[in-house]
Amino acid sequence: MSKTNPARGMRDFLPADVRKRNYVINIIREVYESYGFEPLETPAVENLDTLMGKYGEEGNQLIFKILKRGEKLRQETGAERQESDVSGLLSSVSGLADLALRYDLTVPLARVVANHRNDLPKFFKRYQIQPVWRADRPARGRFREFYQCDVDAIGSESVAVDCELISAVTTVLVRLGFTDFKIRVNHRRELTDILNYLGVSPEKHEIALVSIDKMDKIGLSGVIEELESKQISKDSCLMLSDFFGTFFERDRTSENRNEVIHHLISGGDLSVETYFQKLIAYSQNDYIEPDPTLARGLSYYTGGIFEIVLTDGDFKGSIGGGGRYDGLIGMFGKEQIPACGFSLGLERILVVMDERGMFPPEIAASTPADVMVTVWSEETLAESLRLANELRQNGLRVTLYPDADKLGKQMKYADQIKVPWVCVLGENEITEGKVTIKNMQTGEQQSVDRKDAFNFLLSSSEG
Amino acid sequence: MSKTNPARGMRDFLPADVRKRNYVINIIREVYESYGFEPLETPAVENLDTLMGKYGEEGNQLIFKILKRGEKLRQETGAERQESDVSGLLSSVSGLADLALRYDLTVPLARVVANHRNDLPKFFKRYQIQPVWRADRPARGRFREFYQCDVDAIGSESVAVDCELISAVTTVLVRLGFTDFKIRVNHRRELTDILNYLGVSPEKHEIALVSIDKMDKIGLSGVIEELESKQISKDSCLMLSDFFGTFFERDRTSENRNEVIHHLISGGDLSVETYFQKLIAYSQNDYIEPDPTLARGLSYYTGGIFEIVLTDGDFKGSIGGGGRYDGLIGMFGKEQIPACGFSLGLERILVVMDERGMFPPEIAASTPADVMVTVWSEETLAESLRLANELRQNGLRVTLYPDADKLGKQMKYADQIKVPWVCVLGENEITEGKVTIKNMQTGEQQSVDRKDAFNFLLSSSEG
Repeated sequence: MSKTNPARGMRDFLPADVRKRNYVINIIREVYESYGFEPLETPAVENLDTLMGKYGEEGNQLIFKILKRGEKLRQETGAERQESDVSGLLSSVSGLADLALRYDLTVPLARVVANHRNDLPKFFKRYQIQPVWRADRPARGRFREFYQCDVDAIGSESVAVDCELISAVTTVLVRLGFTDFKIRVNHRRELTDILNYLGVSPEKHEIALVSIDKMDKIGLSGVIEELESKQISKDSCLMLSDFFGTFFERDRTSENRNEVIHHLISGGDLSVETYFQKLIAYSQNDYIEPDPTLARGLSYYTGGIFEIVLTDGDFKGSIGGGGRYDGLIGMFGKEQIPACGFSLGLERILVVMDERGMFPPEIAASTPADVMVTVWSEETLAESLRLANELRQNGLRVTLYPDADKLGKQMKYADQIKVPWVCVLGENEITEGKVTIKNMQTGEQQSVDRKDAFNFLLSSSEG
Repeated sequence: MSKTNPARGMRDFLPADVRKRNYVINIIREVYESYGFEPLETPAVENLDTLMGKYGEEGNQLIFKILKRGEKLRQETGAERQESDVSGLLSSVSGLADLALRYDLTVPLARVVANHRNDLPKFFKRYQIQPVWRADRPARGRFREFYQCDVDAIGSESVAVDCELISAVTTVLVRLGFTDFKIRVNHRRELTDILNYLGVSPEKHEIALVSIDKMDKIGLSGVIEELESKQISKDSCLMLSDFFGTFFERDRTSENRNEVIHHLISGGDLSVETYFQKLIAYSQNDYIEPDPTLARGLSYYTGGIFEIVLTDGDFKGSIGGGGRYDGLIGMFGKEQIPACGFSLGLERILVVMDERGMFPPEIAASTPADVMVTVWSEETLAESLRLANELRQNGLRVTLYPDADKLGKQMKYADQIKVPWVCVLGENEITEGKVTIKNMQTGEQQSVDRKDAFNFLLSSSEG
């Protein structure tokens, strides 16, 4: 007898789960398509080379690697090596794998864009909703297989792209029923200015950003502690604490942001200033909030960076984020191609929607069918099959009880699976061209002409 | 610069591909739901133990295995072994992996049913449309990542289940536009009777079935050649050739089948005979065709077996198949649970539909949007963004040209991406509250009030 659990950190989605997931995915899909984004899908498995080195050292460790097969594996494991070769084997762990599981949807996008430069429109707007895999230590709400919902616009540096992305993501969240969110916005160049001003040397910027990004989770003191442990000078840490402390004490409004930044960095970067002004003026989106503490962990961002957080309730942390990454695609192709994107965290959105009861009743109810047809006897089975098929026209979902059990047992089953209607087709009904229809909620039964059964059920279901 | 191809045997699906795939998947989903089948999803990654030994020796080889990580991997690769331990390492290739990629959707289903026996209804009807991975040698039409569309009914031995499955699959194919198919049906027990009658010893039945299954691909002589190479006796091979030869010379009709079988096996298995009679009588499905040569390669089938083949055109081979497997779920649980299922081959269906031009025009056209909004200048960008959002209400798909390029350039781009309508919003239009709408097919332009633009586009698109 084999184990029956899914693998560690992975999940089976039973029908009620899938219905909720598909409800959210369909809304995301519809909204992104209404903005002219097109669907893209890439394979779960990539060449190991494609992924290694794109996500930092920690990322390299978390990539699931696939064992070589057949002859290639035998060569690596030394079945054909000389004994004296063994030391080589011991150090060649990486030689054992040639493929890997997709770690995010951005690197595959960059690969596809570089590969299909001539088949794709100059401005390629795509969305992609697929699972990714990370060999992280599983924890509450952290899985080893999870979905990302990415939307990216390739080929333009215009701020219009950033505005449209923010608008699309806002529309998704509003359509799903969220009202208590904000879209924090910052600019990588401004962060660079701040870090330079605070005396953090450029080669430490990346590790400093990873720590600053945790501000909402571990607080200012936690960030400072981390920065000190990363050999950032005491002076810089003090100034950082002062800068972000000042900011945290006040409302994180747009004016306040400008004031604080101007106070600290004389002038700042004029083009960044203009970026924020344009983004806010063009977008006319009340959810946008410039926030100089927003850092985003990934190293490939080059311009605007975004993060969506919920403002009410228990849920801490972001439900999505993104930014501009004008250098990534160039890693795969001959030319630098500007790009900007947003990624929504499906799993987190689902958790919050579940907690808040945000699914419409028909999704939350999760019934397998609208109608169950009973089976009177082996002899009448053909008629029951035929009735079920008649009712399936025009979209009614009809399930057939498969065995000629006692009617009481069939009714009990219908009750268990919460089917709202049961059609009884006994010998009398068949002779008379009738169907007995039972409303499982009220218990009422009614005999109707078989040819009217579909319309009866349809109007009753709608009413 | 990294390589930009997908991994060997894997495919990127550009928007035009995804649209076709989703069109087919949505029809399959709708039909299966109308039969009361519920959606299930399982992780791409399973414990290696769950999969090994379920697909025969060849299957074991074709499973993609995932390298262990961290400490566990170091132990296996001997970084912490003594030199003298090395011989152990050389033989422990299987010890290097602990996880594997899903090889089909049936074994994960069996695992889920055993795991969730108490949460699932007694009769669990599920469909599952997800990719599977096989380390097969890639060839034309054979990929290492491909989708399976499975539909299975768990918990009943009733022939009603087989009938409903065949009916559901038939409805899918008809809805997709297929008319030239047949559903070949056989019964494993009848095959066993025939093989026994022909003197094939029981322990050779499985390898004999694998060869007989290739009848349509390699012909009778090919099958006989394979059987001889598998040490099946000359006598048995002669009789087999005689039996299937007789059958092949005549129409494979239901009466003919009975005649041939009765002629060769006096009586045959009465319950199998009844199974066929019931299946045909209850289903009233003209596509069903009993066929004593149908074998199906998989070893877990125990009752009825099915295969769908197209009868016209170049395409050889099946586009789907299935059968009853009453023993598989018991491998994972304490109890035997009867089960029957069907699997459609999405990739093959797509190839044939493409060749035959079976996609509806709006899917085949694959436009990224219904409307493109132009951008006159940086100053009017906010208005263009606003217009795009106005038009997006109620389902129009609208894309915004992101840069303030010359209008001619913007129009050329609209032409390239085949958008049917372009909205020009210049300074004059903004002042006058108008939009100029261009029909990209006819070249006609018309100035309409901005508040009427949506209705104009909607009625024109529908007309």
